[in-house]
Amino acid sequence: MQESATTIAIAPDQPAPRLLEKAVVGAGARVGELAEADALIWTGKPRDFPSTLPASVRWAQLPAAGIEDFFDAGVFTAHPAVQFTSAAGAFSHSVAEHALMLLLAGVRYLPEQLRATSWQQREFFPHVGSLRGKTVTIVGAGGIGRALIPMLTPLGAHVIAVNRSGRPVSGDNIPAGVETVPTDQLARVWSHTDHVVVAAPATAQTRHLIGADELSRLKPSSWVINVARGSLIDTDALVDALTGNSIGGAGLDVTDPEPLPDGHPLWTLPNAIITPHDSNPPQLRLAAFADHVGANVARFVAGEPLEAIIDTARGY
Amino acid sequence: MQESATTIAIAPDQPAPRLLEKAVVGAGARVGELAEADALIWTGKPRDFPSTLPASVRWAQLPAAGIEDFFDAGVFTAHPAVQFTSAAGAFSHSVAEHALMLLLAGVRYLPEQLRATSWQQREFFPHVGSLRGKTVTIVGAGGIGRALIPMLTPLGAHVIAVNRSGRPVSGDNIPAGVETVPTDQLARVWSHTDHVVVAAPATAQTRHLIGADELSRLKPSSWVINVARGSLIDTDALVDALTGNSIGGAGLDVTDPEPLPDGHPLWTLPNAIITPHDSNPPQLRLAAFADHVGANVARFVAGEPLEAIIDTARGY
Repeated sequence: MQESATTIAIAPDQPAPRLLEKAVVGAGARVGELAEADALIWTGKPRDFPSTLPASVRWAQLPAAGIEDFFDAGVFTAHPAVQFTSAAGAFSHSVAEHALMLLLAGVRYLPEQLRATSWQQREFFPHVGSLRGKTVTIVGAGGIGRALIPMLTPLGAHVIAVNRSGRPVSGDNIPAGVETVPTDQLARVWSHTDHVVVAAPATAQTRHLIGADELSRLKPSSWVINVARGSLIDTDALVDALTGNSIGGAGLDVTDPEPLPDGHPLWTLPNAIITPHDSNPPQLRLAAFADHVGANVARFVAGEPLEAIIDTARGY
Repeated sequence: MQESATTIAIAPDQPAPRLLEKAVVGAGARVGELAEADALIWTGKPRDFPSTLPASVRWAQLPAAGIEDFFDAGVFTAHPAVQFTSAAGAFSHSVAEHALMLLLAGVRYLPEQLRATSWQQREFFPHVGSLRGKTVTIVGAGGIGRALIPMLTPLGAHVIAVNRSGRPVSGDNIPAGVETVPTDQLARVWSHTDHVVVAAPATAQTRHLIGADELSRLKPSSWVINVARGSLIDTDALVDALTGNSIGGAGLDVTDPEPLPDGHPLWTLPNAIITPHDSNPPQLRLAAFADHVGANVARFVAGEPLEAIIDTARGY
């Protein structure tokens, strides 16, 4: 008796990325042509998405976390019988890991230590801090914030999550004891905040969410980390705080302006760490997408509900 | 009715460190004179330990994790009726956090990024890695290694712990899925190791545990972290590996020789991070000791078994 394996097409990239092929096969399906496929893993742009699909295709996996462009391109309305999934959640891990790296490097005084070319133990001792017992406020409790929380708590940090609703952050990996505060009450967290991680979306409301006033309420040991969008922090106010050492430092994967121009003071301030928006480089994105695809193909094969199902009527 | 509070003496530092007083009071006891004390928190040297103690003193907390010097000074035999506790475990957290910082900074290419004074996203992209899905071998599964494991697993790293016996590492915070390998089978871990953290004691057996042969089995992306003692790594072989880029890099809080002399190649190799044995600076040691004291005083007040009880006959 021949087994009729589930067939997954990968398009339009040809040859298909090997990591994706491995993920499909590892999840118990086979990679095949779109004409005979049960599902489609789409690696391309919204405007290139096939206008017609074989009737056998019941599921399409999209390569992005935010799928507004696919909605605008009419992809969902063109295929009312197909279930669509996004890559929501898949890309958060690497950005959260980057935020943790920046925070730890700052708190443990790595920038100055890296510049040293002689043994300065006594000089550095007083500056080496720890996250243990410290309160880290994460502004934005979306995918990145929620991925960061379980990385912080084993370090003994207390986490305050800030989101729009103030509804308690929850999830499989969210430990007990995380406090959630609504954005409109952000002002009351500063007095018991040691460090801030900015991980909220850029909107008109979040522009300069961290400005001179907020920075003035932080401690001389506080680090401010931004892995979201540069506009959430008032750069001039931040440069003032860093220059005056009124905060410990800033770790920025995103800047305003971005790219940060040559000669900008942030490049040479000793308490600023700049990484050029590389917290989620292409090779890590592909690996994370492959993990997501593998998990969803396994669910598809088993007839279980898929992850990150798109509400195609609402477009998210 | 007057409550007779448990009285804890702190000696010989006068005034007693405020953090210790706060820990005692926070745990429900009062700080008092040794003459009327139920227990003694000792902050001094072995040779200064009181030769006689009031009969009321039933417990003495020592300030060190390794208490050989107290044993050699005859402290335990002089006070056969007193229960002694060490600070074993208290100081591991900060060193483990430092190891994690060095590893993340290396894997995510921070040294080169920190030196940049212009936006080099495309240049840096291929070099930014992640611990997700990577295997970290921790050589030495004592306090530091065991503290590091639960910090690594939320990052999606697989952990191999290496200890003398090969007996599976276990404990409250040790997640399932940690593989334990005995030191004499260390050779078989290299083929599936991505990164190495050295956290084993320095003995004749562990000298140059990581030498030219071990380094040659690692990957061009592998980072080697040492937070134990410099002698565990063959420095010349490490410099060769770093110079030839046969490994990704090294993060060293300890060196051989130590202090690392001015002009040593490790100071200027772009893929080496040196911190001058400051992973556990005095202020963090005191804070950690205060946490330990607070936990033990609370147990003492409640009549529960204390943590880190010393076997005074054996001296550990």
